[in-house]
Amino acid sequence: MPNFSQPLSGLVTPRFGGIATWGRLPHVPLEDAKGVDIGVVGIPWDGGTTNRPGPRHAPRQMRDQSSMVRRMHQLTRIVPYDLCNVTDLGDCPVNPANVEDALKRVETYFKKLVAKNIRPLSMGGDHLSSLPVLRALGEKNAVGMIHFDAHTDLYDSYFGGFKYTHGTPFRRAIEEGVLDPKRTIQIGLRGSMYDNDDFAWGEKMGVRLVRIEEAIEKGPKAIMAEARQIVGDKQTYVSFDIDMLDPVYAPGTGTPEIGGFTTREAQSLLREMRGLNIVGADVVEVSPPFDPSGLTAYAGVVMMFEILCTMAEAVSKSR
Amino acid sequence: MPNFSQPLSGLVTPRFGGIATWGRLPHVPLEDAKGVDIGVVGIPWDGGTTNRPGPRHAPRQMRDQSSMVRRMHQLTRIVPYDLCNVTDLGDCPVNPANVEDALKRVETYFKKLVAKNIRPLSMGGDHLSSLPVLRALGEKNAVGMIHFDAHTDLYDSYFGGFKYTHGTPFRRAIEEGVLDPKRTIQIGLRGSMYDNDDFAWGEKMGVRLVRIEEAIEKGPKAIMAEARQIVGDKQTYVSFDIDMLDPVYAPGTGTPEIGGFTTREAQSLLREMRGLNIVGADVVEVSPPFDPSGLTAYAGVVMMFEILCTMAEAVSKSR
Amino acid sequence: MPNFSQPLSGLVTPRFGGIATWGRLPHVPLEDAKGVDIGVVGIPWDGGTTNRPGPRHAPRQMRDQSSMVRRMHQLTRIVPYDLCNVTDLGDCPVNPANVEDALKRVETYFKKLVAKNIRPLSMGGDHLSSLPVLRALGEKNAVGMIHFDAHTDLYDSYFGGFKYTHGTPFRRAIEEGVLDPKRTIQIGLRGSMYDNDDFAWGEKMGVRLVRIEEAIEKGPKAIMAEARQIVGDKQTYVSFDIDMLDPVYAPGTGTPEIGGFTTREAQSLLREMRGLNIVGADVVEVSPPFDPSGLTAYAGVVMMFEILCTMAEAVSKSR
Amino acid sequence: MPNFSQPLSGLVTPRFGGIATWGRLPHVPLEDAKGVDIGVVGIPWDGGTTNRPGPRHAPRQMRDQSSMVRRMHQLTRIVPYDLCNVTDLGDCPVNPANVEDALKRVETYFKKLVAKNIRPLSMGGDHLSSLPVLRALGEKNAVGMIHFDAHTDLYDSYFGGFKYTHGTPFRRAIEEGVLDPKRTIQIGLRGSMYDNDDFAWGEKMGVRLVRIEEAIEKGPKAIMAEARQIVGDKQTYVSFDIDMLDPVYAPGTGTPEIGGFTTREAQSLLREMRGLNIVGADVVEVSPPFDPSGLTAYAGVVMMFEILCTMAEAVSKSR
Amino acid sequence: MPNFSQPLSGLVTPRFGGIATWGRLPHVPLEDAKGVDIGVVGIPWDGGTTNRPGPRHAPRQMRDQSSMVRRMHQLTRIVPYDLCNVTDLGDCPVNPANVEDALKRVETYFKKLVAKNIRPLSMGGDHLSSLPVLRALGEKNAVGMIHFDAHTDLYDSYFGGFKYTHGTPFRRAIEEGVLDPKRTIQIGLRGSMYDNDDFAWGEKMGVRLVRIEEAIEKGPKAIMAEARQIVGDKQTYVSFDIDMLDPVYAPGTGTPEIGGFTTREAQSLLREMRGLNIVGADVVEVSPPFDPSGLTAYAGVVMMFEILCTMAEAVSKSR
Amino acid sequence: MPNFSQPLSGLVTPRFGGIATWGRLPHVPLEDAKGVDIGVVGIPWDGGTTNRPGPRHAPRQMRDQSSMVRRMHQLTRIVPYDLCNVTDLGDCPVNPANVEDALKRVETYFKKLVAKNIRPLSMGGDHLSSLPVLRALGEKNAVGMIHFDAHTDLYDSYFGGFKYTHGTPFRRAIEEGVLDPKRTIQIGLRGSMYDNDDFAWGEKMGVRLVRIEEAIEKGPKAIMAEARQIVGDKQTYVSFDIDMLDPVYAPGTGTPEIGGFTTREAQSLLREMRGLNIVGADVVEVSPPFDPSGLTAYAGVVMMFEILCTMAEAVSKSR
Repeated sequence: MPNFSQPLSGLVTPRFGGIATWGRLPHVPLEDAKGVDIGVVGIPWDGGTTNRPGPRHAPRQMRDQSSMVRRMHQLTRIVPYDLCNVTDLGDCPVNPANVEDALKRVETYFKKLVAKNIRPLSMGGDHLSSLPVLRALGEKNAVGMIHFDAHTDLYDSYFGGFKYTHGTPFRRAIEEGVLDPKRTIQIGLRGSMYDNDDFAWGEKMGVRLVRIEEAIEKGPKAIMAEARQIVGDKQTYVSFDIDMLDPVYAPGTGTPEIGGFTTREAQSLLREMRGLNIVGADVVEVSPPFDPSGLTAYAGVVMMFEILCTMAEAVSKSR
Repeated sequence: MPNFSQPLSGLVTPRFGGIATWGRLPHVPLEDAKGVDIGVVGIPWDGGTTNRPGPRHAPRQMRDQSSMVRRMHQLTRIVPYDLCNVTDLGDCPVNPANVEDALKRVETYFKKLVAKNIRPLSMGGDHLSSLPVLRALGEKNAVGMIHFDAHTDLYDSYFGGFKYTHGTPFRRAIEEGVLDPKRTIQIGLRGSMYDNDDFAWGEKMGVRLVRIEEAIEKGPKAIMAEARQIVGDKQTYVSFDIDMLDPVYAPGTGTPEIGGFTTREAQSLLREMRGLNIVGADVVEVSPPFDPSGLTAYAGVVMMFEILCTMAEAVSKSR
Repeated sequence: MPNFSQPLSGLVTPRFGGIATWGRLPHVPLEDAKGVDIGVVGIPWDGGTTNRPGPRHAPRQMRDQSSMVRRMHQLTRIVPYDLCNVTDLGDCPVNPANVEDALKRVETYFKKLVAKNIRPLSMGGDHLSSLPVLRALGEKNAVGMIHFDAHTDLYDSYFGGFKYTHGTPFRRAIEEGVLDPKRTIQIGLRGSMYDNDDFAWGEKMGVRLVRIEEAIEKGPKAIMAEARQIVGDKQTYVSFDIDMLDPVYAPGTGTPEIGGFTTREAQSLLREMRGLNIVGADVVEVSPPFDPSGLTAYAGVVMMFEILCTMAEAVSKSR
Repeated sequence: MPNFSQPLSGLVTPRFGGIATWGRLPHVPLEDAKGVDIGVVGIPWDGGTTNRPGPRHAPRQMRDQSSMVRRMHQLTRIVPYDLCNVTDLGDCPVNPANVEDALKRVETYFKKLVAKNIRPLSMGGDHLSSLPVLRALGEKNAVGMIHFDAHTDLYDSYFGGFKYTHGTPFRRAIEEGVLDPKRTIQIGLRGSMYDNDDFAWGEKMGVRLVRIEEAIEKGPKAIMAEARQIVGDKQTYVSFDIDMLDPVYAPGTGTPEIGGFTTREAQSLLREMRGLNIVGADVVEVSPPFDPSGLTAYAGVVMMFEILCTMAEAVSKSR
Repeated sequence: MPNFSQPLSGLVTPRFGGIATWGRLPHVPLEDAKGVDIGVVGIPWDGGTTNRPGPRHAPRQMRDQSSMVRRMHQLTRIVPYDLCNVTDLGDCPVNPANVEDALKRVETYFKKLVAKNIRPLSMGGDHLSSLPVLRALGEKNAVGMIHFDAHTDLYDSYFGGFKYTHGTPFRRAIEEGVLDPKRTIQIGLRGSMYDNDDFAWGEKMGVRLVRIEEAIEKGPKAIMAEARQIVGDKQTYVSFDIDMLDPVYAPGTGTPEIGGFTTREAQSLLREMRGLNIVGADVVEVSPPFDPSGLTAYAGVVMMFEILCTMAEAVSKSR
Repeated sequence: MPNFSQPLSGLVTPRFGGIATWGRLPHVPLEDAKGVDIGVVGIPWDGGTTNRPGPRHAPRQMRDQSSMVRRMHQLTRIVPYDLCNVTDLGDCPVNPANVEDALKRVETYFKKLVAKNIRPLSMGGDHLSSLPVLRALGEKNAVGMIHFDAHTDLYDSYFGGFKYTHGTPFRRAIEEGVLDPKRTIQIGLRGSMYDNDDFAWGEKMGVRLVRIEEAIEKGPKAIMAEARQIVGDKQTYVSFDIDMLDPVYAPGTGTPEIGGFTTREAQSLLREMRGLNIVGADVVEVSPPFDPSGLTAYAGVVMMFEILCTMAEAVSKSR
């Protein structure tokens, strides 16, 4: 086994001790990173938020909570840290006072990361932060996406023509050609609507939109079988908006919608991704000011760990 | 389409902005109301509470949270504001220092409202606040009722003979002849019991009592099919006690009982009411001091929106 | 009916009134207890906690919340207080500043309790507090156990050889011969793992380990049928770690694991224990500092009431 | 030293352990009380509250917090439990559903208590609960009063003529002749006003009204010297409304007014009462739902302990 | 007395009832406003925030809390609603997704307001929201300012040259000539510093900078005497950043600095402004997500009421 | 100026971004530390706590909050990072399951630290964690101490002879000869007492005990002048128990005592230490579970910064 980075063990140092890095892994800034396969990155930014703010604080709270996650997956017995080199790269540069500049900073950072052949597992940030990541990953070839969310985030604009908000990233990504709508599936959609524009546009572009009622009725295996077929073997991004969960599981988010998934259902969904070629993933929209208990962030990091195990297998297989 | 009142859109004015009226609708006091089909009313009162207080604060918190609800129902695509005229009538008069006087004030108000041919969609208040509303609606003909609750609220008296508490409203309403027990169904009953008096009395009167275990086992469709049969085509009231939800979905209530419904299950139940002749409805027992996060109130207003869509169809059909 | 202790009724004295004893029962210290069949005891101690502390505060909060529980079980109509004599014995002696001394004090107390022929229904305390109770109950004959938990608590040691923590009690109990591994079943196991040592050891000893995925798939009736078969007719202990519940139902605990049981599922499981010979039980790991709302403690006391009803039947039958 | 009741020591049993009685004293119901000099009583009732509710929950939270108070006063070295017999009498009967009946129940209880020659140290309850206590204490001779509060509670009526609310108790007590206005001083008055009626009436009756600005400018010694002169040697009641404290020290109350006293200032005021003939006292308007942390209740019990030390000296001197 | 708008009285309608407008005044949108002397306006925006977000939610929470304020000032007996016409104008338009556009919208709104001869009393919003208000008020003649704050907000730029943040508004206002630095005083400055640039620039421009240590040592009367001399008789703006208060009095803010003013001290300072020609004022930086209790907002609205009384006198005198 | 470690600036990277190290300084583990003058160390341990637990979580929350502190002291203009090399050394090893072992681990660590000629500025941990630090610093020569606290922590034993708790560290340190009682002053003592043993013993040993009443009456300058005289020029330790602050400033602590210092008063006291030879310091007893808002921890880190500035001057002077 190569000399991969290992997390500090809670059997040796208690879990509340030590500097809070993700998963108790070493922190290595991107510029110093060598041989990193999967890089955990924070995007402390919420400039695209149109409603309740806060995701700028998520990376810190998620790192703190991540000490609660141990090294081995309880069902698959995968230890991602034995399969590849995983590192906490810290946070990427942002700008809380200017949306355009912030998008530029994040995009630049992730292009450097991709150039180093690192697969990003990022913590938002609001959902607009997925756009610059997709610009980096899909620069050469549009990626496919499995997207868990209460909302489509396919709106065109807000407040009289403003194009960059957390309700619009995937419309932009599709328009820019970095996301392939025909290889995109959105799961868990729900909540009252302004109108039907986002759904209509998405369907026209070929996105598969799955409302939560359908997801529950068919069950996780059937839905994810379809998802696997849609994204196929090619490069796939996973975007997990924490508001796919019911607000009782994720009160710390900006636009909660009741009637959502339980964490158990979410885990069932994520566990059906094994074998896919996940080239990047994010968990976004955790808003610590609306959940000081940290349980939302904790749910978020467990979802990151579920995804990490699958990504680590993909890296291992690709060698 | 007639010139119905429309809510402020979150795509134009962000949802956290503006005076907090229900659903971001115009506020028109009852005395000025003209051509209103459905009136949203707050009953800021909890004088009937025998345990943990607080519902007096519910209408304000529910109005605040109601900005999170958009105009179109996600499944039925109903926009209630396109079907009839819905208005926030503000709060009715109450008296926190005297139960009898408070009941009188609420009854008087709702009789005026009924006289204006407005269907009330009210926010309690504790469950005793349903009694004066039923007195107004059932004055001429007893109404039927679909009642979602953890408790029967059919007790006779408390503390040595006191007849008016939030545990007794429907016994009083049946005794007074404003509620038809044979057209009444109670769904979600659970929690440990003092004795069996409330159940025994209800059953004797012909009320259909559905414990949560039965409701879960049979499923929402079957239970609601029975409910539809029980209430039939005639005038029906809907009373939704927020404690029908499990306490994790509704911590902000006075008498939580574990093992309750999820919001998803509650939505499934409510959606089976389409086509019924709902002449009034309430969501009661939200207690903000026990949930400063507002998520209980938010669940309550989404339930109001589910009911509103069905009421609006009923109004529209009745024209 | 003998002259058993009766709880204060909420129909007479409101539930928020009076000294907070468990279930509003009389408080009688162990040394004064006579003719007590089932003794509710608090173990205000968390010296075995390796992660987030707090269960030392649980007995007080649980007593406070227990006023919300009424006297009759809603489905079985069992009134435990009519079947046998149930008393709140108060808290047993502890020592927050020394683990060994604390274990000794608790063991001594419970041996006295057992000598008085009282069946203990205790409130932890962290899970290490079950060890001295088992030492008392299993002194002559090892007991069997139905154990609800997210974790096996079968680890060998922490922090370089320390043998007494809340992650090790049942390994110690099995080694000491007070717990029969072949008559032990653990239900609800989940969460990421350090390694596989606890599972491997437990399986080697003959403990039946049921992961939550299996429990959900098979359902409560099948799982509990197996549990009944495993423990048989002989003396059985029930240990309910509150973290068997999902963190949304029990945020107030030290080592939450997402993806857990709902309270409704937990009730379904517990209700399948009727007829077993339960000689003692505990609900542990409630941590009030992580849930000031008290809802975790409330869930805990309802679980205690579910168990109490079954214990009371067992006592009644044994006469 | 006689065989007075003693509190459990935190050096022996940790403070979080044991049944929560006031000051960790024995609980003896009034009907069993013998030889009690000072009786701590809870009045779990808030039926007079016109604004935010909650004091019905105060006695429980105050008992819980009272474990934090040790037995000896740090400056005077008074140990009240060495000077006289102090007991927790539990809660008096109340009725949350009817104001008149509740007032009657409390009055009846306190008349029995006074008949047993016990001096009451009660925990409200809202401020209307002081009225029935005064009716018992002042039945034969009107008492004087040192009253700490942000409000005069001398209003005439609310909501169109309702005479019994927490804003009116002392107007009623003066009208009924159980409180001597000329031997009454109110300290700490502040907050915006409806009109000047309460002040005008109080001044006309001879009550000394001290606004907080005057109290701060003159200082605790000067103000209390005047208070001592006003009440003289005769029977004096002390009523401490927790909202005399600034809301940061007492967020858990129904009608907070910013710009209040610090706890340090409050202690300075109370310590100037030594030597007065305090025949009864209360701390009221603690509202736990608005302060789950318990710090408001904790401040309240420390104020009770400050008063208790002075009452105990008065009892001791009177023998 | 002219027919001025009057607030709903808490003696008639309880304070928790009714639609939440500021001070329970009528809500009249700016376009409909006639004869309004002082307009309360919300600016639900925090796009200039460089640290913890949230003031976008302040106007709603402040309106809700403002029901706790009664109509008469307790010391001066001023009833502002008897001196002039005060109205809640609702919220001005904003844009959470674009700083420049938001500044433009706010400026445009306030220019209309000034054109109607209304004096604004606004609720931020973060402190950058004061800039567009000053642009409207100081368009023709630069205004003077009494500024209460922990910070100078005189920085030049953030994050590499970004000029519009909540740390820069007054540097911009001085540069743009809408604020007269020689008629500006800043009171309460404290907290660790990046460097000395903001202080050096302010002093160079002639701003009087008063650190909290100096303010406490000299006392409110002396400091405010100097402030009165500095601003003189001419048009003066008052800007009250809630973080001038110590964080215990105002936890709900983005950049708390310990060691701040008490609310009592703040009231003393504000009460020394009587007689000044206040043409506009704001209370900013209240951040509800960091104080769900609402006490920060409550402190903010009491400060608004203190200022309102002085503004109303100024209006009255100017007639 | 030498090449000292510098904190990340909030003007460049927003304060909510980046890995949470103390003061945004580089993290260098002790074994890698070279040329470090002052080392910030966390002691995540609360095994000595006899009441409410939690300080094991303090170092993490304090690091998170420390991003709010900027680099320059606002009054003295000291930038400690320009005077000497300050580094975050991370947390020292602990053991939550065994008091003796934990004390040994901490002592061993700090002896290594002292051997490297680093002055420790540590974050507890409960107050027992000061004992092993003093054992390291006072090994050769007993140190003097300025101790800010509500309690003496000079008790002899708890729970029947247990010698190592957070109420006993300084009695042990004096007995062991690592702390010089005649060069020790304790400031801020208050709260009700078990008995007078701790005070009597301390006074007998020559410790100067200053009750808060005396401290307030004499004022910070006079008290600290005496403190300076007591400790003199020799090696002095500063121990700051967060409960010296009033509970409103520090609710997040285990044994709050009302009537404490404000943060402004605490700052005034600390600022009088300039010029002393501070060889080590700690801030202890911050308990995050009792203050999820983080404001207690924030107050703690500002106190650390105040002390750091003085320590840095001492280091600089000693070169």
